[in-house]
Amino acid sequence: MIEIERKFLVLSDDFINEAFAKKRIVQAYLNSNPERTVRIRIKEEKGFLTIKGKGNATGTTRLEWETEIPLQDAEKLLTICESGTIDKIRHEVKVGNHMYEVDVFAGENEGLIVAEIELQSEDEIFKKPSWLGKEVTNDERFYNAYLSVKPFKSW
Amino acid sequence: MIEIERKFLVLSDDFINEAFAKKRIVQAYLNSNPERTVRIRIKEEKGFLTIKGKGNATGTTRLEWETEIPLQDAEKLLTICESGTIDKIRHEVKVGNHMYEVDVFAGENEGLIVAEIELQSEDEIFKKPSWLGKEVTNDERFYNAYLSVKPFKSW
Repeated sequence: MIEIERKFLVLSDDFINEAFAKKRIVQAYLNSNPERTVRIRIKEEKGFLTIKGKGNATGTTRLEWETEIPLQDAEKLLTICESGTIDKIRHEVKVGNHMYEVDVFAGENEGLIVAEIELQSEDEIFKKPSWLGKEVTNDERFYNAYLSVKPFKSW
Repeated sequence: MIEIERKFLVLSDDFINEAFAKKRIVQAYLNSNPERTVRIRIKEEKGFLTIKGKGNATGTTRLEWETEIPLQDAEKLLTICESGTIDKIRHEVKVGNHMYEVDVFAGENEGLIVAEIELQSEDEIFKKPSWLGKEVTNDERFYNAYLSVKPFKSW
């Protein structure tokens, strides 16, 4: 139930050619408070309910709990979420032994591209591809929950 | 996913002798906002995650979605809930063809006893036992989510 993750801005779209999968994600929040976010997500034809706790001091480690739920239930639950739906295309890009998830945002967050990498420990070494930019792991403005309330275009 | 329910105050403890089951419930909220409550509940040795939408005009009908979750996960998720845990003993009391759930609250809500009945339609007829008091279905103060923030003893 512990997720260790680091997040980076993306400098160019050179990752596109390296991506081996592309999935549309639509998600909204039953609670966008970073102390206890509750997210409803539809990823292609699957529904998910995800709960996350607050990040630690570096923002790298958070409690995370997820369960798959029926697509129809996810659609129903989206109707009672807070306003501010996140719409993005997730590209899965393998770099060395790790997988980067590169999210290209649409709608109110168009223009934002963010890459995340999940790690086994906080100090795990990983390869940084040329298109990887500044680290924003500890910057709450880039939390999707925050983007649902204060979208990138409004910055 | 639609729940139709009516709620009443309880006048006496005469229901105790009619109860055929008694279960301890401990619950707290990942969101206590009545527009979209998210509840973590431990009922005896089982964990549950429940999401409810806003009530209709009469407060009788709400969207409700529930899933059982592992007890250990529920215990972990309780640690990131809002403060204000609800602790109560639920008595199941059969009256005619219906089941009343009579909740005897403890802790900060001690002194409060509330009975709920689940119906198939808003206008369904049901028997009212002698211990049943005033209807409070539409009174948000008696929502458990509200009681977690403003407990009965503080009224």
